Amino acid sequence: MKVLVVGSNGQIGRHIMNLLKESKDHTGVAMVRKGEQAEAFREKGMEAIVADLENSVKDLAEVMKGYDAVIFTAGSGGHTGADKTLLIDLDGAVKTVEAAEKARVNRFIMVSAFQANNRENWNSKIKHYYAAKHYADRALMQSGLTYTIVRPGGLVNETGTGKVSAGEMTERATVPREDVAKTVVECLQEAHTYNRSFDLVSGDTPIEEALIRI
Amino acid sequence: MKVLVVGSNGQIGRHIMNLLKESKDHTGVAMVRKGEQAEAFREKGMEAIVADLENSVKDLAEVMKGYDAVIFTAGSGGHTGADKTLLIDLDGAVKTVEAAEKARVNRFIMVSAFQANNRENWNSKIKHYYAAKHYADRALMQSGLTYTIVRPGGLVNETGTGKVSAGEMTERATVPREDVAKTVVECLQEAHTYNRSFDLVSGDTPIEEALIRI
Repeated sequence: MKVLVVGSNGQIGRHIMNLLKESKDHTGVAMVRKGEQAEAFREKGMEAIVADLENSVKDLAEVMKGYDAVIFTAGSGGHTGADKTLLIDLDGAVKTVEAAEKARVNRFIMVSAFQANNRENWNSKIKHYYAAKHYADRALMQSGLTYTIVRPGGLVNETGTGKVSAGEMTERATVPREDVAKTVVECLQEAHTYNRSFDLVSGDTPIEEALIRI
Repeated sequence: MKVLVVGSNGQIGRHIMNLLKESKDHTGVAMVRKGEQAEAFREKGMEAIVADLENSVKDLAEVMKGYDAVIFTAGSGGHTGADKTLLIDLDGAVKTVEAAEKARVNRFIMVSAFQANNRENWNSKIKHYYAAKHYADRALMQSGLTYTIVRPGGLVNETGTGKVSAGEMTERATVPREDVAKTVVECLQEAHTYNRSFDLVSGDTPIEEALIRI
């Protein structure tokens, strides 16, 4: 599959790009906001294109032509204001969904947040962030795309173990970013994850097996 | 109709409450966030209840039981951060929609913003606010409720003229808050506005007639 990774410059995005580079089944292209970010990917032998989530759906659809899948792992981050959370994490995500529909890219994987589907479990310190993720996920579910929504727990930078727990959860736990990336890449062609959403934390089950059980 | 006015303490909300008080067809109940706000409505001979849009859908549905219609004109306002825009203008609105469905209040009127439906016409200075309104409107349209979405132009405090222009527009113009309120109340039982959205600015056509023409 030819995969566009939206938000490649983020920590999960970089792991995903590395995994796609190693993969025999896929080719990853990094979508990033700045020329120098694209250059950094190219220097590592990866493909990259520059596009901004604040662009129009039409422009984003133009970028997406010819891809088989989109992975969305972009976010405005904690250093900008909540106005950017609305414009990137919500509206940017939904525009990406709409652009994928327009460009006939049928497969879409969203990196969301633990229990973003349940208002009562939103982290009270960053509730507005969860609201943004919640409505982006809703829009994806209502689209005509073959989606998978991965909702990781607390992200940590430890090396991945390749073992996770996946499903609908209530107990918050952590998960290495590397394992989130592995799970996302594994989802691409795992039909059991089509049109499904699940929480993801560290666990005892190999990723491949965990995905079949969700 | 027994009408719950969510956001009664806002400027448009107060006009709506006054109009409902004068009306022979309707009874308005002000939903406000603070006890003293409720008291102020009661002192003017109006009904009021205290409820918070940050409450759960279940709690909001409990408040809504027995009503025939909900008018949503709440907003976090410019003095709070964009995090509150996400939690009140977007999530608070959608929770109100979900609560109305749960409480079987079938009629729902949303006070939105001029051209909130078209990203390219969002006011660039408060784009995030338009994004919030946009997704709230979308959720209402996707609900099972009989909705009307009124998208007023630049709000001014001049006395209403009772004459407007309503429909899909591209040229931004102003409209007195009093005329927005009159339009909203007129919509309640005007079947021609059921499941419709329209922009609203000052114009030459009496409100009643403008609504039949949309």
